[in-house]
Amino acid sequence: MSVDSVEQSKIGAPSSGVEPLILKRWSPRSFSDRSIHPDDLKKVFVAASWAPSCFNEQPWRFIVGHRGDAIFDRIVDALIGFNKQWAGSAPMLFLTAAKKTFSRDGSPSEFHIHDTGIASAMLILQATALGLHTHGMAGIDKSKAREAFAIPEDFDVCAAWAMGYLGDPDALPEPYRALEKGARSRKPLEEFVFNAWETPAIFGV
Amino acid sequence: MSVDSVEQSKIGAPSSGVEPLILKRWSPRSFSDRSIHPDDLKKVFVAASWAPSCFNEQPWRFIVGHRGDAIFDRIVDALIGFNKQWAGSAPMLFLTAAKKTFSRDGSPSEFHIHDTGIASAMLILQATALGLHTHGMAGIDKSKAREAFAIPEDFDVCAAWAMGYLGDPDALPEPYRALEKGARSRKPLEEFVFNAWETPAIFGV
Repeated sequence: MSVDSVEQSKIGAPSSGVEPLILKRWSPRSFSDRSIHPDDLKKVFVAASWAPSCFNEQPWRFIVGHRGDAIFDRIVDALIGFNKQWAGSAPMLFLTAAKKTFSRDGSPSEFHIHDTGIASAMLILQATALGLHTHGMAGIDKSKAREAFAIPEDFDVCAAWAMGYLGDPDALPEPYRALEKGARSRKPLEEFVFNAWETPAIFGV
Repeated sequence: MSVDSVEQSKIGAPSSGVEPLILKRWSPRSFSDRSIHPDDLKKVFVAASWAPSCFNEQPWRFIVGHRGDAIFDRIVDALIGFNKQWAGSAPMLFLTAAKKTFSRDGSPSEFHIHDTGIASAMLILQATALGLHTHGMAGIDKSKAREAFAIPEDFDVCAAWAMGYLGDPDALPEPYRALEKGARSRKPLEEFVFNAWETPAIFGV
């Protein structure tokens, strides 16, 4: 299966009328060697900055490593399990962290992780627009990451992300090779859009 | 100031090369009476479904109210402060909730709120693509919302959102009228993209 046919097979149902940018985004584990131009890299982070956040706090922080540098190696080191292997082949890895308190008065925020998720979403869609792919990883040793990067207690370590251009799916070991070529699945609206709790919302008549 | 000129003034710096969809999204408080076509409403929630999530759990749930129905009124009732006033003029409000545990094995998730943020971001960008506007609200009484909608303990109440078409900014009282017409601000990259902690990342040479 070629890189192009994998790419095509991953596009979410276009008949839904959803934006192509949103339907084209998926999470590969195979990345090519091609590096990311600094101008493109800037764009993905500027895109993140335009996310909305509670009191416009912009609680998100990104720690960025490139393959071959010490930051990249430390991010890989903080990854758990198989993530360590495939993510190590991406040209870029970054960690996200979220500020627990509001800068304006030091009061605790309940939205810092939520809003960092929103900013990460802006980032990954901008990456998609530039022909890049991203893959978020929950499997990180957060204490290790905190220690490796001296992340202060006032920040939660959120997630790790790999970013780069799509690589050869056949370079992956199983079961990841099959996953890379497999169909995507999502819940139908009835399962997550409600009127009353767990009562599907009605769209029109 | 006309609705169109407010709209124009809110677009993030196009010179950044960031996707217009991301730059066009902002959070108004003035909404027009125009209702949202059910087909468009479906699209925004389908867009949310294509968000990535840890183990593809898709932990997000949306409770959707339309102005004039009981759900809408109950969401308004759970809002805090001035949100109650302006949000009540939107044609649509919805609440987000996030499942705390993984369906596959019942283990706790640390990513449910983060991933609900990502799904909300897909939703608001799809809304932007359809000419709609959204405004997220942190100011909600979460206990009241939980009780009003019988949201189970296994879910965290996340945020409330207003969605609709842009309305007349001059219909807002101050200070919200001025905010509606004011400039947007975002941190420069140096303040949130790091190599080492709080050391700005270098993009190229």
